[in-house]
Amino acid sequence: MAASSLLAAILALQLLLLLVAFTPAPAAAASPSKRPIHQPPSFPAGISTLRRRAASSSGRLATEAVKPFTAHYFPQELDHFTFTPNSSRVFSQKYLLNDTFWRKPTGPLFVYMGGEADIEWLATTTGFMFDIAPEFGALIVFIEHRFYGESKPFGNDSYKSVDMLGYLTSTQALADFAILITSLKQNMSIVDAPVVVFGGSYGGMLASWFRLKYPHVAIGALASSAPILHFDDITPWSSFHDTVSQDFKSESLNCFSVIKAVWDVLDNRGSNDTGLLELSKTFRACKTVQFIYPLSSWLQTAFIHTAMMDYPTPANFLMNLPAYPVKEMCKIIDSFPAGADVIDKAFAAASVYYNYTGDQKCFQVEGGDDPHGFKGWGWQACTEMVMPMTVSNESMFRPSSFSYEKMSENCLAGYGVRPRMHWITSEYGGHKIDKVLKRFGSNIIFSNGMRDPWSGGGVLKNISSSIIALVTEKGAHHLDLRSATKDDPDWVVEQRRQEVEIIHGWIDQYNKDTAQG
Amino acid sequence: MAASSLLAAILALQLLLLLVAFTPAPAAAASPSKRPIHQPPSFPAGISTLRRRAASSSGRLATEAVKPFTAHYFPQELDHFTFTPNSSRVFSQKYLLNDTFWRKPTGPLFVYMGGEADIEWLATTTGFMFDIAPEFGALIVFIEHRFYGESKPFGNDSYKSVDMLGYLTSTQALADFAILITSLKQNMSIVDAPVVVFGGSYGGMLASWFRLKYPHVAIGALASSAPILHFDDITPWSSFHDTVSQDFKSESLNCFSVIKAVWDVLDNRGSNDTGLLELSKTFRACKTVQFIYPLSSWLQTAFIHTAMMDYPTPANFLMNLPAYPVKEMCKIIDSFPAGADVIDKAFAAASVYYNYTGDQKCFQVEGGDDPHGFKGWGWQACTEMVMPMTVSNESMFRPSSFSYEKMSENCLAGYGVRPRMHWITSEYGGHKIDKVLKRFGSNIIFSNGMRDPWSGGGVLKNISSSIIALVTEKGAHHLDLRSATKDDPDWVVEQRRQEVEIIHGWIDQYNKDTAQG
Repeated sequence: MAASSLLAAILALQLLLLLVAFTPAPAAAASPSKRPIHQPPSFPAGISTLRRRAASSSGRLATEAVKPFTAHYFPQELDHFTFTPNSSRVFSQKYLLNDTFWRKPTGPLFVYMGGEADIEWLATTTGFMFDIAPEFGALIVFIEHRFYGESKPFGNDSYKSVDMLGYLTSTQALADFAILITSLKQNMSIVDAPVVVFGGSYGGMLASWFRLKYPHVAIGALASSAPILHFDDITPWSSFHDTVSQDFKSESLNCFSVIKAVWDVLDNRGSNDTGLLELSKTFRACKTVQFIYPLSSWLQTAFIHTAMMDYPTPANFLMNLPAYPVKEMCKIIDSFPAGADVIDKAFAAASVYYNYTGDQKCFQVEGGDDPHGFKGWGWQACTEMVMPMTVSNESMFRPSSFSYEKMSENCLAGYGVRPRMHWITSEYGGHKIDKVLKRFGSNIIFSNGMRDPWSGGGVLKNISSSIIALVTEKGAHHLDLRSATKDDPDWVVEQRRQEVEIIHGWIDQYNKDTAQG
Repeated sequence: MAASSLLAAILALQLLLLLVAFTPAPAAAASPSKRPIHQPPSFPAGISTLRRRAASSSGRLATEAVKPFTAHYFPQELDHFTFTPNSSRVFSQKYLLNDTFWRKPTGPLFVYMGGEADIEWLATTTGFMFDIAPEFGALIVFIEHRFYGESKPFGNDSYKSVDMLGYLTSTQALADFAILITSLKQNMSIVDAPVVVFGGSYGGMLASWFRLKYPHVAIGALASSAPILHFDDITPWSSFHDTVSQDFKSESLNCFSVIKAVWDVLDNRGSNDTGLLELSKTFRACKTVQFIYPLSSWLQTAFIHTAMMDYPTPANFLMNLPAYPVKEMCKIIDSFPAGADVIDKAFAAASVYYNYTGDQKCFQVEGGDDPHGFKGWGWQACTEMVMPMTVSNESMFRPSSFSYEKMSENCLAGYGVRPRMHWITSEYGGHKIDKVLKRFGSNIIFSNGMRDPWSGGGVLKNISSSIIALVTEKGAHHLDLRSATKDDPDWVVEQRRQEVEIIHGWIDQYNKDTAQG
């Protein structure tokens, strides 16, 4: 294979997909000789483990059989910030509407800011907005992020080169949202209806930035699990993996120790072809692996994603998982007899993530399809979304460092661009956010669950009387945005109740201000 | 001459230069056959009347002989918002520093956001910042706006085509400021020093938008004579010319009536070559005019610019003018005997603007040089800065209408682009600004003088306890930013005193917040 392809593959391993997939740099950095040369280029490896099955059975909406929205397309400007010849180009941006509960024309618009996935999947996994729309009489709008789902400005060619991918940036996406919302309201003759924006993970970052940059469009934002402080040196670089590790350690010290021990054992056994063949059998790989990396990556992904989705009820966000899946994994590890093999333990635990329903005959450990269309995140992580990550010695993963220089070289090799390492904090801020927003801005909820590995990069303390942090000790990645279930514990019920109450306050205030003429 | 050149000339007439030059649409719209075909394309005609003389003798700084600043150049990204191949291009952005009064490292940075002119000229006409820097111990920074002065990304080719001019937008300029300020503070090891931004006219718009979009960079903004509401239908379209007319009417009804009468007389007499020859003599044109338009435009410019610069003390901003120059013009008109010719009256009045020092032998009524480098404004007015203007029947100018469609066609013909008519309000807001900013944002002073034709598009009422309007009944275009003089009337002394007091409050608050850890 070509050298560029190899570089791209290496690069892919060092990227992260914010919402769902993360293949940590450590393994690649620590054992370069074991890096894969057969991964699809410019594609986060963690994603490879997703199955289309996960897509088809997602969502808990009562109206699941019939889609609870209609799809629409808006002619969007490709480039809002220059007038170069390409900027006269428009593309079709997809958005979804549900007006079932809408009290026209005064009811608010609840607008979801799509992140790095197709919008229909995001809509079916964000039941909270549907749950609360009736009491607000809200019009529900889900807007797809450019370059994801069907909103690809250059169609199937959109990922082919920098010339096209170059327009995939957060600032362009925010302007898309502003233009689309403004235009929609004009066309529907509801220019005075208040708009509240919602988002989770990267979409949550967008929601909070949108309220800050476009206060004339949105009166408030619910930013769920939005790690807007995971840039520069604001958040400790080891925070993400430390939290994953802590999640497992909190269930059982043995569980943590077993996982911590597995990486060296894997490396040792995978150092020759016989070992790889045997490990492939142990891991029930559909195809014998040629290198150890895919197996360690497959395991890491299981532990990281399960920590992110350590929900208190059974859920099917990326995979079908039981309630408190980290606890389940650790129960399995702890139930092995004393002298059992750590590889067997780790595989059994990972099976909670990959095969909870028990219907998988073998595993595509070397990567699969991309049912939700996350592909563009690799580019975003290599341009704007530079979130440094390391793995500390205290973590249950292999320790690793982060180098801006190395990242820059890798991105140049993989995508033909160098990252703008500090652009996000220049454009959106982040440093000393408590001082900056103490007397500026209003009406943002930053919600986080402390079991979520991303929570360390979130806003965890109230900044002002209306820039609020709602933190739950036991919550995971944007749990609050999921549909309510009868088994929800009190603390998430309470978190959602507070969100609803605060949003009511924004709307009441807006209506009062508007009525004053 | 080529048709495209003619179109460009027509277009130029319908544009306006915010800060200093404005050639109103009316004349062109009302008498198309008299439009000039010999104007430089894509260049506001009003500018043509500037003389280099005005540039060389500007400024009242004590240190006038020696420039009170040092010039520096920053490697700036061409395109902050995409990663297209051009975006890796950097250009040299000029900025000026004065550290004479600076109390390093805690003293604030006073940063002037350059508008549509070369930065050295703007620095020499913004004495207020130098006047107040000592009591604040401030570091003074003037940043040049991209595509003006020496900050042309493509050198002398910068205005040659859309490919290059396309990067001349307000959003790119604001990001330039953010990046430059952030980088400067890092390089000088003063990351915690507070930044206050200043600007007048278009630069004032940028200053207020900068505080709203980059609160993490600037703790407050003084936006002087910033018509941020002169977009869409927020401000009555006739406001600008109505205010000019009112300025003259307030001095004398006769003065107003004479000027109102002059346009038809001009048209009648200029309808044949003999008349044009005679008028050229009356106007002391250096070259006989071929059409009436340059003469009427020359007169209009005199009245409009004089209204903008109706300062209470002698000033040399664009031209040498006496104190209260509108009053001077009207005195001259009113002093003519009853039966005198209106043309003679109008010419004599215009001479206050063009020839107050009495040293002009003839006038370049058809356009001159561009000493301050305003050239890019034509492009900006044809892309983002769409400020609709009409002339009402009650005005002293020829009535005229405004058509989005016509403007769009003209801009397409002249520059190869269509304006984004409502982009500014989508990006920055403006509609119901009092409601939007009542509970969002802080620390902005909008200062205006009601004699300024641009004041109608400004923020004239307090929005919140820290978004403040400072309005003087007798002030003109960003008078407060000029150097103090011994003859300043109390009301401008008081306006500046309030500004200083408010800025002290911002800095004290910032220091207090920061000290709280």
